[in-house]
Amino acid sequence: MLRGIGGSGVAFAHSAGRRSVALTRRDPLAIDARMPQFLEAVTPDEARRILGRFPAVRRTERVTLAEARGRVAAMDVHAPERLPAFARALMDGYAVRARETFGASESAPVYLALAGVVPMGSAAPGPVPEGAASGISTGGAMPEGADAVAMIEHCRETGQGYVELGRAVAPGENVLGAGEDVAAGTLLVSRGRRLRPQDLLALAAQGITEVEVEDRPRVAILSTGDELVPVGCRPGPGQVRDANSVALAAQVEEAGARAILLGIGRDDPEELEKAIAAALPGCDALFVSGGSSQGARDATSQVLARFGPPGVLAHGIAVAPGKPTILAAAGEKPLVGLPGHPVSSLVIARLFMNPLVRALGGETGALDPFVGRVRARISRAVASKPGREDWIRVALRGDVAEPLLKGSGAISTALHADGLVCIPLDSEGIASGEVVEVALL
Amino acid sequence: MLRGIGGSGVAFAHSAGRRSVALTRRDPLAIDARMPQFLEAVTPDEARRILGRFPAVRRTERVTLAEARGRVAAMDVHAPERLPAFARALMDGYAVRARETFGASESAPVYLALAGVVPMGSAAPGPVPEGAASGISTGGAMPEGADAVAMIEHCRETGQGYVELGRAVAPGENVLGAGEDVAAGTLLVSRGRRLRPQDLLALAAQGITEVEVEDRPRVAILSTGDELVPVGCRPGPGQVRDANSVALAAQVEEAGARAILLGIGRDDPEELEKAIAAALPGCDALFVSGGSSQGARDATSQVLARFGPPGVLAHGIAVAPGKPTILAAAGEKPLVGLPGHPVSSLVIARLFMNPLVRALGGETGALDPFVGRVRARISRAVASKPGREDWIRVALRGDVAEPLLKGSGAISTALHADGLVCIPLDSEGIASGEVVEVALL
Repeated sequence: MLRGIGGSGVAFAHSAGRRSVALTRRDPLAIDARMPQFLEAVTPDEARRILGRFPAVRRTERVTLAEARGRVAAMDVHAPERLPAFARALMDGYAVRARETFGASESAPVYLALAGVVPMGSAAPGPVPEGAASGISTGGAMPEGADAVAMIEHCRETGQGYVELGRAVAPGENVLGAGEDVAAGTLLVSRGRRLRPQDLLALAAQGITEVEVEDRPRVAILSTGDELVPVGCRPGPGQVRDANSVALAAQVEEAGARAILLGIGRDDPEELEKAIAAALPGCDALFVSGGSSQGARDATSQVLARFGPPGVLAHGIAVAPGKPTILAAAGEKPLVGLPGHPVSSLVIARLFMNPLVRALGGETGALDPFVGRVRARISRAVASKPGREDWIRVALRGDVAEPLLKGSGAISTALHADGLVCIPLDSEGIASGEVVEVALL
Repeated sequence: MLRGIGGSGVAFAHSAGRRSVALTRRDPLAIDARMPQFLEAVTPDEARRILGRFPAVRRTERVTLAEARGRVAAMDVHAPERLPAFARALMDGYAVRARETFGASESAPVYLALAGVVPMGSAAPGPVPEGAASGISTGGAMPEGADAVAMIEHCRETGQGYVELGRAVAPGENVLGAGEDVAAGTLLVSRGRRLRPQDLLALAAQGITEVEVEDRPRVAILSTGDELVPVGCRPGPGQVRDANSVALAAQVEEAGARAILLGIGRDDPEELEKAIAAALPGCDALFVSGGSSQGARDATSQVLARFGPPGVLAHGIAVAPGKPTILAAAGEKPLVGLPGHPVSSLVIARLFMNPLVRALGGETGALDPFVGRVRARISRAVASKPGREDWIRVALRGDVAEPLLKGSGAISTALHADGLVCIPLDSEGIASGEVVEVALL
């Protein structure tokens, strides 16, 4: 069942521009296969809201820290221990009682008896006697009695068993107290965090060697289109290679999922339905990489509707390129019909499918399309039609973003695009020289 | 031999602030083990220049497109074919001779005889006769004679074998001509490009199923420090877990290399030398994850010097945190002594080792530390000592960067750091509210 749709109430409420449709259901099963015919293109925000309702997959596995980078933590991890376990010196120098150094200066140094050296990797042999100092290295365990470290730069051994201190130190100076870094019980890693090197550092420092992470979601990709042939084949007249599914698989894996390439189906509803039905039990989401023709789109949407409830949830997104994107669901599993133009597919995968896949993988805050962005100055004006969100493909040259204005059917536009610049729904365009945010591609 | 150091001349020229040392050698072998004693800390730019001299590893392998994402192309790839192979319709509609539509309007439509439908995935059955139009879907092969597509929205079949056109089309309108997207011979992917989904798209569209990529460099990580115990062990008095090597391995792998964890050695020059000598033949770079004490650093630098020429190249970098970083080389292989404080190690790995590793992996333009950055407003003033480059750790809350001011020995600072903000060598700090670039961590 879709998250947020309980017995209690409101299901998918769409307000698709002028011709808005509000759907309120007491029972998700009532969102049936008849829904699509009422639906129009939704706004990008509505599309994100729909995608945000799919629950994370929540199968988990235990991995070692060496395997955990980039995986999503499946549970909160708290510090079992305090850190550091013992007060440590933060500098090389002499462990002292701070009050015994008060008043020390270059002209009036303080002399303390040299009481041995704290060896690295073991406890201090004993307390520092009153009036004495023990040599200590950075990271060494502070001996009992001492509460500060006088830096080696300000000290001089006299050679007669004494250390001369040319500067006073305050209590606690150059010492990291026991538990001062991390208190026992501190939240180290939250469930939903994609693990970074510094997260692994914090876990390792606590002696944690394994972590429970979310499984990678399995995303099946089915290509459809009577004109498509596998990439390894030579296309006959009127045929093209199914390159979109290769890029889509790479994008899906970039988002932390496993891509399952199902191959190419014909634009035939019965064949398509069989292929999807066969694949569904083995995947967590299914993307139909559409043929570019209206016929292919129609076939896809007809077939996705049959897998409801809830069936088709959005019949297009008010975004360019990529408007003919179909959002649907078979129970809790997203079914998406992606547009056939290569640039459209690339953009929709970047802006909507990457966040969806990361959310399915349990990542917190995954639905922000602007993760990975830079600022740049746009090199020329770009006009936009109000009423749709335009995502202009740009090539980055240093701090300048050059719009690529070839059509969405062109491989070359996709190839040269380093990022996307958004012209919002209600805007008529960007002026030349304007500073824009670029979502990296 | 280090790249850029030929028989011809200048080798490593350092100008380390006030006490600059310029080293000019006719022969790289003259950069011998005695060099370190002349060297001081270098500026960050000098460090980058030194790191930039290490040649890429240049072992290559052939992988399928499914394995190629994120790998570095080992050679230029040009388009074997032009794309599209045939003129394609960019819209659903009717393939027409544009000139036969001139003057058509809603009030004075043009009528053309309906001459069949172009099937998807095959050549048009024949040319479009004069005065006729063929139905065509997006992606369909333009039939001979036709030079434009009238969009279906502007057409209506009369039911008597005619199509009514309510609008004129220009020659070439809604058609992607043969070769118009990609000309045969076009450079698709340059050697040194880390392959993105759109690169794989362009290769797949050409029927290229495999690509020659650079091997992942092998980076060995040796931990040293008498106080260190393996992460899985319970530390005794005065001991700490070797968490740095876990984070370092993750950072190295993030940069596209394979990390080889060699375990923990003692701060003993002979032991260290043996461990490095044993590991060198099996790796492309070796990082010594240092103990935090002066003793550990000294042992590391003494031992790295023995592996010259050229031996030690820089004895510290004028950067905080992370000053006690040792750059050295055994022939062409980088040997690096990393600082023992966890935050220092994390920062140096992010700013210097990540670029080095990516360059070893053959990636073009790898030495920019600002790859992956955002802009933010700093929430409070931070002072800096001129003469060193300060990299302030910040936590990001939306567009606000909050400086984390705990010391570099604190795990918690590392854990909460989302990025780094640079205070340049000559600056005395950042004012509160200033807009800064944040290098993501």
